[in-house]
Amino acid sequence: MQIAILLYDEFTALDAIGPYQTLSSLPDAETVFVAERPGPVVDDNRTVALEAHAALADVPRPDLVVVPGGPAPDLENPALRDWLRAVDTTAVWMTSVCTGSLLLAAAGLLKGRRATGHWLAREQLGRLGAEPTGERVVFDGKYVTAAGVSSGIDMGLALAGRIAGDSFAQGVQLMIEYDPQPPYDAGSPEKAPAALVERFRAGG
Amino acid sequence: MQIAILLYDEFTALDAIGPYQTLSSLPDAETVFVAERPGPVVDDNRTVALEAHAALADVPRPDLVVVPGGPAPDLENPALRDWLRAVDTTAVWMTSVCTGSLLLAAAGLLKGRRATGHWLAREQLGRLGAEPTGERVVFDGKYVTAAGVSSGIDMGLALAGRIAGDSFAQGVQLMIEYDPQPPYDAGSPEKAPAALVERFRAGG
Repeated sequence: MQIAILLYDEFTALDAIGPYQTLSSLPDAETVFVAERPGPVVDDNRTVALEAHAALADVPRPDLVVVPGGPAPDLENPALRDWLRAVDTTAVWMTSVCTGSLLLAAAGLLKGRRATGHWLAREQLGRLGAEPTGERVVFDGKYVTAAGVSSGIDMGLALAGRIAGDSFAQGVQLMIEYDPQPPYDAGSPEKAPAALVERFRAGG
Repeated sequence: MQIAILLYDEFTALDAIGPYQTLSSLPDAETVFVAERPGPVVDDNRTVALEAHAALADVPRPDLVVVPGGPAPDLENPALRDWLRAVDTTAVWMTSVCTGSLLLAAAGLLKGRRATGHWLAREQLGRLGAEPTGERVVFDGKYVTAAGVSSGIDMGLALAGRIAGDSFAQGVQLMIEYDPQPPYDAGSPEKAPAALVERFRAGG
């Protein structure tokens, strides 16, 4: 089973590494980071440089695709769009984290499908033809979308369970000691202080 | 404020990226990935290659140090040990995730201090002179240690709160949408099925 994690300029690092850490130990899985060109791809803070192993053309038939988000992914990029459409024809799972679902939707893959993404991007997701929900992880057929950034960990575990069974996924959870204890309860717009939510809605 | 995240061969990717994603947006922070040599450092799955910006010698006075873990960090590596001891004399915060606390302890920095680490490494942590606890994030003076892999996110948020205030840290939590909803409740040896815990204790 080949897992392809897409990288592009100004992706968000945890969007890619959350699913990576939970999916890459699947039995018989090979994980490849793929980008327009092989070599380092720099994140949205211009700090993390993560190596892409292969160019898009070199990964034509991945079984599982992970599309991370970023503050403003280029939805018009024809190379990304064409690759997503092409691999979708054979992939068993097409997944995204955060605004990665905007890339899937802009490629026409989420039309009429229930999907999610970063809370600030859900309206746009609807305008791109998906049916946005407020859930953290959404399965609609082979399309699996997750909410903002950190939700890729929950998605990866849920997907690992579907692919390799509950016991395997529980083993992954135990080994990454994923027993979350956030020091605050501000992880969604419903739970965070209203003033904070308004500030981010207004652009930070 | 300079944040130095240590990389070394066979580190665990999420151990580094969890704190990175929660700390790198601190006001006036510059984050640098540091390793024995600049250039790509490969993770424990031999898959992630994350670029180190600087050699240890080039980062002599970081304000905040993050030491990620890995399946078997080399506790005898003199370059890492000497660097940790040297930067400890001026750093404001010395932190670790997972077995990173073993590196801090082996450098003699956790003697008699309350500390934590991956659940499978806590006994060894005690043998290295620390006082291991089962808590997820442990503050003992300027030494902040976190449990296994994913706990670096909780540590990063807690530390961001100490450094920049609760509201800032809540803003980080909201933007990474950290409202965890694991599909299983198996994230600690107390919660996971006993057979699974025993299997990992016996070596996987």
